[in-house]
Amino acid sequence: MTPSGNVPSDRLTRPGGRTARVREDVLTAAGDQLAETGLPGLDLGVVAARAGVGKSTVYRRWGTVPGLIADLLTEMATSSLPRTDSGDLDSDLRANARLVRKTLIDPRQGTLFTALIAAATTDPATAAALHRFYAVRVQEWAPCVQSAIARGEVPVGTDPAQVIRATSAPLYYRLLTTPDRITVGDADRAARAASVAAKAGVFVN
Amino acid sequence: MTPSGNVPSDRLTRPGGRTARVREDVLTAAGDQLAETGLPGLDLGVVAARAGVGKSTVYRRWGTVPGLIADLLTEMATSSLPRTDSGDLDSDLRANARLVRKTLIDPRQGTLFTALIAAATTDPATAAALHRFYAVRVQEWAPCVQSAIARGEVPVGTDPAQVIRATSAPLYYRLLTTPDRITVGDADRAARAASVAAKAGVFVN
Repeated sequence: MTPSGNVPSDRLTRPGGRTARVREDVLTAAGDQLAETGLPGLDLGVVAARAGVGKSTVYRRWGTVPGLIADLLTEMATSSLPRTDSGDLDSDLRANARLVRKTLIDPRQGTLFTALIAAATTDPATAAALHRFYAVRVQEWAPCVQSAIARGEVPVGTDPAQVIRATSAPLYYRLLTTPDRITVGDADRAARAASVAAKAGVFVN
Repeated sequence: MTPSGNVPSDRLTRPGGRTARVREDVLTAAGDQLAETGLPGLDLGVVAARAGVGKSTVYRRWGTVPGLIADLLTEMATSSLPRTDSGDLDSDLRANARLVRKTLIDPRQGTLFTALIAAATTDPATAAALHRFYAVRVQEWAPCVQSAIARGEVPVGTDPAQVIRATSAPLYYRLLTTPDRITVGDADRAARAASVAAKAGVFVN
């Protein structure tokens, strides 16, 4: 039996290709929908239609809206840019802060993040997925601080996660509590504040 | 003409007393409702019933949900505790951070703040009211930094608002992106990081 004409050609040459593409289309549609309407407008049927994928496929694979959000965050965590390794803590944290800024001021990504943060305040499953996302991001960047400890830039016992979180925090706080756009100067200042505090031993456990 | 019997007695002795009490009751009911259900459950009729106040009074005075939220935030800003003045920047920022922590871990207040932050991500009027709230709080605490500049603890040109925001940011970030409860240690560390960075001149404009 040969595949019917409507099976996409990559299915024939690359096993799993169609499944992977369906996931990509559905997660893109979910992200777009979330960025536009927030959690209230996120419905599996709407996402399926937007992605051009059968409703039953979406229900079978993701089951619920929190299930879909959790997968979206997993995908966002694994596809985000890798950390830098400049050999200098200040530069590494500055690269991190500028990347956070870039994400937060991006029209689609920034709106998506604020929508997810808002959804997490009332939905425990979304909160758990969001917490995992940030834990993965912190893990990804922690080696910058471990290298800085090894180089003697910051004291032994410094908690890498706290340094990375201290770098992001002012940018999220500015986004959520002020009408101001986050500037490159804000990003660099956040990085420098975290670096100076780390060097002074503030984040030693 | 004498007042009818159903005019509360404080109206007779204290002009504006009833109006002030109605406002207090309505804002308390609005805060409770918001903490319980978030923005979706906040309805002027529901708030009126909860406050034991006539629906028409609430509609006439506050008009819309964003109008009610704006007034709630104005009340929260003016009724929050005044800043400390210990004569030492570290201690003042620690007092500030511990106050922020106390608010965020309080079951009613913490939920109220996260509900307001969530609502602000989609509702511009709520966002504007929330931004005003934080601007007032920052203004209230800015003199701690101005005094520290006068005492020579931090460099001339240090932006007080940035120091105050840097103190709060890690606590809000922890609340929104991790499942961890904010500890006194977290508050003190946030204060110390802001203080160390301020002394190093990171917040000089």
